[in-house]
Amino acid sequence: DRLGFPEVIYGASKPLPVLRDILQSYQEKGLNALATKVQAEKGQVLTQEFAGSHYDETSGAFLLKKIESDESESNGVAILSAGTSDLYVVNEAYYTLQFLGCHAARYNDIGIAGIHRLLGKVEELKKYKVLIVVAGFEGALPTAVGGLLPQPIIAVPASVGYGVSEGGQVALNTMLASCANGISVVNIDNGYGAAMAAYRILANAS
Amino acid sequence: DRLGFPEVIYGASKPLPVLRDILQSYQEKGLNALATKVQAEKGQVLTQEFAGSHYDETSGAFLLKKIESDESESNGVAILSAGTSDLYVVNEAYYTLQFLGCHAARYNDIGIAGIHRLLGKVEELKKYKVLIVVAGFEGALPTAVGGLLPQPIIAVPASVGYGVSEGGQVALNTMLASCANGISVVNIDNGYGAAMAAYRILANAS
Amino acid sequence: DRLGFPEVIYGASKPLPVLRDILQSYQEKGLNALATKVQAEKGQVLTQEFAGSHYDETSGAFLLKKIESDESESNGVAILSAGTSDLYVVNEAYYTLQFLGCHAARYNDIGIAGIHRLLGKVEELKKYKVLIVVAGFEGALPTAVGGLLPQPIIAVPASVGYGVSEGGQVALNTMLASCANGISVVNIDNGYGAAMAAYRILANAS
Amino acid sequence: DRLGFPEVIYGASKPLPVLRDILQSYQEKGLNALATKVQAEKGQVLTQEFAGSHYDETSGAFLLKKIESDESESNGVAILSAGTSDLYVVNEAYYTLQFLGCHAARYNDIGIAGIHRLLGKVEELKKYKVLIVVAGFEGALPTAVGGLLPQPIIAVPASVGYGVSEGGQVALNTMLASCANGISVVNIDNGYGAAMAAYRILANAS
Amino acid sequence: DRLGFPEVIYGASKPLPVLRDILQSYQEKGLNALATKVQAEKGQVLTQEFAGSHYDETSGAFLLKKIESDESESNGVAILSAGTSDLYVVNEAYYTLQFLGCHAARYNDIGIAGIHRLLGKVEELKKYKVLIVVAGFEGALPTAVGGLLPQPIIAVPASVGYGVSEGGQVALNTMLASCANGISVVNIDNGYGAAMAAYRILANAS
Amino acid sequence: DRLGFPEVIYGASKPLPVLRDILQSYQEKGLNALATKVQAEKGQVLTQEFAGSHYDETSGAFLLKKIESDESESNGVAILSAGTSDLYVVNEAYYTLQFLGCHAARYNDIGIAGIHRLLGKVEELKKYKVLIVVAGFEGALPTAVGGLLPQPIIAVPASVGYGVSEGGQVALNTMLASCANGISVVNIDNGYGAAMAAYRILANAS
Amino acid sequence: DRLGFPEVIYGASKPLPVLRDILQSYQEKGLNALATKVQAEKGQVLTQEFAGSHYDETSGAFLLKKIESDESESNGVAILSAGTSDLYVVNEAYYTLQFLGCHAARYNDIGIAGIHRLLGKVEELKKYKVLIVVAGFEGALPTAVGGLLPQPIIAVPASVGYGVSEGGQVALNTMLASCANGISVVNIDNGYGAAMAAYRILANAS
Amino acid sequence: DRLGFPEVIYGASKPLPVLRDILQSYQEKGLNALATKVQAEKGQVLTQEFAGSHYDETSGAFLLKKIESDESESNGVAILSAGTSDLYVVNEAYYTLQFLGCHAARYNDIGIAGIHRLLGKVEELKKYKVLIVVAGFEGALPTAVGGLLPQPIIAVPASVGYGVSEGGQVALNTMLASCANGISVVNIDNGYGAAMAAYRILANAS
Ligand SMILES: Nc1ncnc2c1ncn2[C@@H]1O[C@H](COP(=O)(O)O)[C@@H](O)[C@H]1O
Ligand SMILES: Nc1ncnc2c1ncn2[C@@H]1O[C@H](COP(=O)(O)O)[C@@H](O)[C@H]1O
Ligand SMILES: Nc1ncnc2c1ncn2[C@@H]1O[C@H](COP(=O)(O)O)[C@@H](O)[C@H]1O
Ligand SMILES: Nc1ncnc2c1ncn2[C@@H]1O[C@H](COP(=O)(O)O)[C@@H](O)[C@H]1O
Ligand SMILES: [Mg+2]
Ligand SMILES: [Mg+2]
Ligand SMILES: [Mg+2]
Ligand SMILES: [Mg+2]
Ligand SMILES: [Mg+2]
Ligand SMILES: [Mg+2]
Ligand SMILES: [Mg+2]
Ligand SMILES: [Mg+2]
Repeated sequence: DRLGFPEVIYGASKPLPVLRDILQSYQEKGLNALATKVQAEKGQVLTQEFAGSHYDETSGAFLLKKIESDESESNGVAILSAGTSDLYVVNEAYYTLQFLGCHAARYNDIGIAGIHRLLGKVEELKKYKVLIVVAGFEGALPTAVGGLLPQPIIAVPASVGYGVSEGGQVALNTMLASCANGISVVNIDNGYGAAMAAYRILANAS
Repeated sequence: DRLGFPEVIYGASKPLPVLRDILQSYQEKGLNALATKVQAEKGQVLTQEFAGSHYDETSGAFLLKKIESDESESNGVAILSAGTSDLYVVNEAYYTLQFLGCHAARYNDIGIAGIHRLLGKVEELKKYKVLIVVAGFEGALPTAVGGLLPQPIIAVPASVGYGVSEGGQVALNTMLASCANGISVVNIDNGYGAAMAAYRILANAS
Repeated sequence: DRLGFPEVIYGASKPLPVLRDILQSYQEKGLNALATKVQAEKGQVLTQEFAGSHYDETSGAFLLKKIESDESESNGVAILSAGTSDLYVVNEAYYTLQFLGCHAARYNDIGIAGIHRLLGKVEELKKYKVLIVVAGFEGALPTAVGGLLPQPIIAVPASVGYGVSEGGQVALNTMLASCANGISVVNIDNGYGAAMAAYRILANAS
Repeated sequence: DRLGFPEVIYGASKPLPVLRDILQSYQEKGLNALATKVQAEKGQVLTQEFAGSHYDETSGAFLLKKIESDESESNGVAILSAGTSDLYVVNEAYYTLQFLGCHAARYNDIGIAGIHRLLGKVEELKKYKVLIVVAGFEGALPTAVGGLLPQPIIAVPASVGYGVSEGGQVALNTMLASCANGISVVNIDNGYGAAMAAYRILANAS
Repeated sequence: DRLGFPEVIYGASKPLPVLRDILQSYQEKGLNALATKVQAEKGQVLTQEFAGSHYDETSGAFLLKKIESDESESNGVAILSAGTSDLYVVNEAYYTLQFLGCHAARYNDIGIAGIHRLLGKVEELKKYKVLIVVAGFEGALPTAVGGLLPQPIIAVPASVGYGVSEGGQVALNTMLASCANGISVVNIDNGYGAAMAAYRILANAS
Repeated sequence: DRLGFPEVIYGASKPLPVLRDILQSYQEKGLNALATKVQAEKGQVLTQEFAGSHYDETSGAFLLKKIESDESESNGVAILSAGTSDLYVVNEAYYTLQFLGCHAARYNDIGIAGIHRLLGKVEELKKYKVLIVVAGFEGALPTAVGGLLPQPIIAVPASVGYGVSEGGQVALNTMLASCANGISVVNIDNGYGAAMAAYRILANAS
Repeated sequence: DRLGFPEVIYGASKPLPVLRDILQSYQEKGLNALATKVQAEKGQVLTQEFAGSHYDETSGAFLLKKIESDESESNGVAILSAGTSDLYVVNEAYYTLQFLGCHAARYNDIGIAGIHRLLGKVEELKKYKVLIVVAGFEGALPTAVGGLLPQPIIAVPASVGYGVSEGGQVALNTMLASCANGISVVNIDNGYGAAMAAYRILANAS
Repeated sequence: DRLGFPEVIYGASKPLPVLRDILQSYQEKGLNALATKVQAEKGQVLTQEFAGSHYDETSGAFLLKKIESDESESNGVAILSAGTSDLYVVNEAYYTLQFLGCHAARYNDIGIAGIHRLLGKVEELKKYKVLIVVAGFEGALPTAVGGLLPQPIIAVPASVGYGVSEGGQVALNTMLASCANGISVVNIDNGYGAAMAAYRILANAS
């Protein structure tokens, strides 16, 4: 708050009554609030208890006050992902940015197994100020994006995969060791952190 | 190059004759070049062979053409570090930024064991557009900086420490799991990558 | 027992009939008993079978004879935690100390993301003889406490977090590698062990 | 031998006298022999002791009888590598294939940081029956090759890199988790094994 | 597709409606489709919704159009496995090959604990062009096969075992470190990848 | 300093000139100083440059002003170790305590392979207020001590051992998982941290 | 079989019909059979289907023909365990030995937290030819036994514990690194393997 | 000693003067002594200082009094190894057994890459009471031996190999997870421990 960032609630390990109390205290102050990684059972109850709220089941993001977003006007942030399995991370970043007043564009399923899908989007992607890139399995998408586009790139490993890639650690390490220059990385599945890093760039570096 | 980034040579695993050849080809084209993580024995030979070059033994950065920097005028990037042991990473970031035409300020030894050292610098640090924060051991400095300053923060874990923190993996994981929002992270000891990430922000996001 | 410590029962991997038998043998000898990490299904049955017992569902601590505690009088041990998610560990320490005749004070949710919450408590915290500090994610709270207060500090990593911090290993390593001096650490989620370490200090070192 | 494969000697952990004895017994039978990963000090002595032998210092491969190779005629195997740092693995594969009577082509330094270097070679690479692809750091080259070319691909992780990629484990895992289909992988730095796998394909699958 | 490989759908992390949509779009184009690692609940629904489809519950492979296979005529690929516990991986490879028009033979339960079972099959196995070898626990079967047969061998570690071998990492590492020459390896449980690697050999290397 | 703890210098990763400067600044202020983990080459030079200093080569501890200790009078802290190989850790704790004005007793080589050596000391050990217990290999000594003595116990894993116990991680984990109650643990080889933890107990808990 | 060992069936990953078929084929040949790690649901069905069989739910051991054991006469093998939580491993070893015609004695709950329990049994334990020792958490019991008794000792780590000791890896490593001499170790939870190792000693070494 | 085992000195981390003192105290008592893993520089000095001593440079074993062994008469223990690289472990076991009065037979270089070498020895190997089996890389030799011979088998992983098998952990895990029954395992490179385990069997189990 002191730095201009609204506080965000980590929903995963808080029981329903605790979440309800925190949200109510925000509501009473007339503030909006964002809780992340809220599990489905808790999210569904909260949606019914708080009128005007919005719960995204894919990511577990819960917004106390739904925000109408007009994505077509936005060119601040694009969120790219390798496959539809990564959508839960994409959406956490998307709703965090929306909560911060920034409407992001989403480009799903442009993983490098079919590199033409990415190549066909390069020109269009040049208009965004910051790129968030999500990938699971071997996590190679940020490397490819970094070789094709000059913007700041925040890479997010997704815990999608099996065998050696189960849990997202391989995707994380690939992104950290990437030979494409200047890619920075956040924790596995941390769409929220990627959104905040993008927001720090948009809000302060210009 | 295609994206406006000059190519940087990874010096650590290249034998001296290979490095010499690559540098000569740059020299012949009238270009400057940067080689990173060049070991002392190789760096000392190259410095003598290439007139006008500069070799920083602390970081292993080798610049084909020395660049005169006027740090006092700069307010693009500040590089903060927890202790004097982290200087080898700080300098890799510093010389990479210099090579890219960006003169960074260095704030060494402001680790959180003596938090007053950091607190005393907060006002001054507000003027920089991007903060690079280097720390070894448990790597807690970026968290502290992230709670005090609103700029984009690129955290670099240093392989400084012993026992569980040997090799830098604990510092890396602390930075990735940091409860301070919006911190993004590069590979252990990757001063070069942090500099490139800062450069992407300075060059494109404004 | 031989050292003046009552034996504590590890409840997690004991089936209900085994736990019941052990508790009955204590009851028959007129002794109180503590079982830790008793799962909810088992705890609820035991509460009904043993009159006068107390089961704390948050931590899984089961006390054969409930103890009335008068926390306001106590200044032996304070248990600090970073967030409400850590309460399950806090309570295991709390009930273990209660069982040992020591009434601890609890300070929840004073994690360093909002460092002012901790700073506002520093004076008050000076009165305790021993501090137990619980934190998940990157586990930085004990470092901050260690830089502000001179007492013995027993740090407990909590298995709260996701991605690299899942399972509590990052919090553990951060605490072990902490640059704040003289912090000692117990196993992940081991509120019981932290309480015993505090008790050893209170009972013997004076 | 029984399967038509000549036995290959693992040189790294054998002292010089042991290696000498083994090589002499081959020489006496009039056979050629290959020793891999022979360290420089041992290789130099052996080269002088065995007339007509060949020692490749980059890879440590030692051939009892030098083989004249006519690379221009060959289109069995191409060995691709991401950077010049990977040459030590490339050459181990190259000399193993030479020993087996198969002259391989080498394409060095076509890593995906400069994807145009690879794209420019795709047509030419179509003529080879098997592709061996070597890469260190994040090891993404085989994924890119696998998306562009239909041949059998044997990926070899190189222990080139630092931080999380030190030792080659990240490159290995990236190759195993690759979203490009049908890539198979051998041990880190195992150029010999990749060559044998290629040889099994060339010799048997046609 | 561009390389002659039909695209295969990763079913594990896609919700039912997403899978249904993708399959319908294939059906509308008159194409067959393969989805791998489809969980039982999803697979059973899809089987009923798509007439003429086939779902193999053991492996989770779902074929949009069932393929009648005539195994007796085939001598392209044999899939060997150490025990009946490995069947889920065997079948993923089997159905992927069937989808690609290649009918594989399956040899289950010939693990090296009873080495005579393998020895009794050696002559018969010589007729196949490629061998896929699946094993869990310590994963030693590919080593034994590699010492007895000269064909290309693609080893697949299975996540079967407990203690140190839980999750398949030991089987993977054993296969990578195997002293039998020329064995190449795919990800843990990746029957699909092994089939694709075999297909690359059959389709291109001859 | 603010908490009454003198700052201690981490000597391992500081070059000689840096160490010299820091020590001189202390000397000029008339203060004593302690540097830990100073390598032999650096320690020997510093001993000659600073008159009245003391360097312990076993542990690498460097004291700016040598302190005369009268161990026979002390009963604050006993430092126990499993074998003579652990002496480098024992001495780091010993000189840190000496620097803090506390003269510790040392009991070397009482590891549990010969449990009678420990049993014979139990009565004598009862007089100390705090026990520091150092062990390498499987690190079982603190468990044995914890079952026999009631004082606060600070366990220090030593990086002594080979195979699975190389680096000290097994000793660390054994100490953390110990079934002896109330043992707390510091980082591998961290004699300094154990001394500070003991000092916090002696100085504050009474 | 060839070596005089009856084959034992690994039950954990075999579905019920597969287990039933295998057991029936043994029954038809008039042989007894042992299946290990059979889950409760499967074990209960099999017990009802095979008259005269015996299923031990604690360990999951299933014996096709129940064996009457006369433990009082036996002095071949003693199975010691640290706590009642380890009983599932103890019983797997016990029933495997019974199947092999060897009646073992069981000594539960003699862990080193209460070393007197073990000390009180030392004389009695001297009569056994082989000792199997099971322990979870930090796994220190075999070290203590090895220092007190001269027989062959087979240590079995149990996957009992939490935090760093979850899964049994710490107990395993402690046993491998034990300073007590001549302890050999089997896989985590591998009561079956320990029994076979004991049987090899009893049957062959005399 | 109390159990009839002479104490053995761990030489690796003891400086020369400490080793000399310990050995002298044994010499003065007229006892023989064994020190293991003594590095070459120390071993050579000790050999010259102690007349009649024996130092085996391959393994680092130092015997205070050389023992004349008559291997031909012995059939207690055979030590098998996969390759000549494993000799350093073989010899540690050999000299430990010699020190204990047991003359072992050594069978080197019978690894399973050339399974006929092992098969040709099976009859001869039947005469030994205990088999010690050493292997590096993927460590498969004990599995093969266990399937062919009925004696007690003590497996020793050697830290021989590269890539995933560097350090011996893969060989260790393969041996622990082995599907051959009744193999027990000691620490990586622990020839001493294997010898002691064999000695326990020979001395007590008959
Ligand atoms: N210190 C460094 N860390 C990571 N990547 C680097 C470093 N220095 C250079 N690079 C990258 O490595 C590649 C050059 O590799 P090479 O062709 O082997 O010199 C370029 O893509 C650089 O961006
Ligand atoms: N939560 C816990 N964490 C670690 N040790 C515990 C815990 N609860 C009880 N213990 C210890 O476990 C032992 C009791 O084990 P058991 O006999 O299995 O109940 C005693 O030594 C206790 O000190
Ligand atoms: N079982 C599997 N293991 C690894 N990759 C797979 C598997 N099944 C499909 N794929 C690959 O995953 C990609 C499809 O991912 P998606 O677009 O998420 O369905 C394609 O590149 C396939 O080659
Ligand atoms: N190579 C070795 N590996 C493991 N333990 C050893 C070894 N050599 C000696 N020991 C054991 O180490 C202890 C001696 O340690 P120390 O007093 O440090 O010499 C004794 O318990 C020996 O049984
Ligand atoms: Mg993906
Ligand atoms: Mg630091
Ligand atoms: Mg927390
Ligand atoms: Mg590379
Ligand atoms: Mg298997
Ligand atoms: Mg020790
Ligand atoms: Mg236990
Ligand atoms: Mg070997």
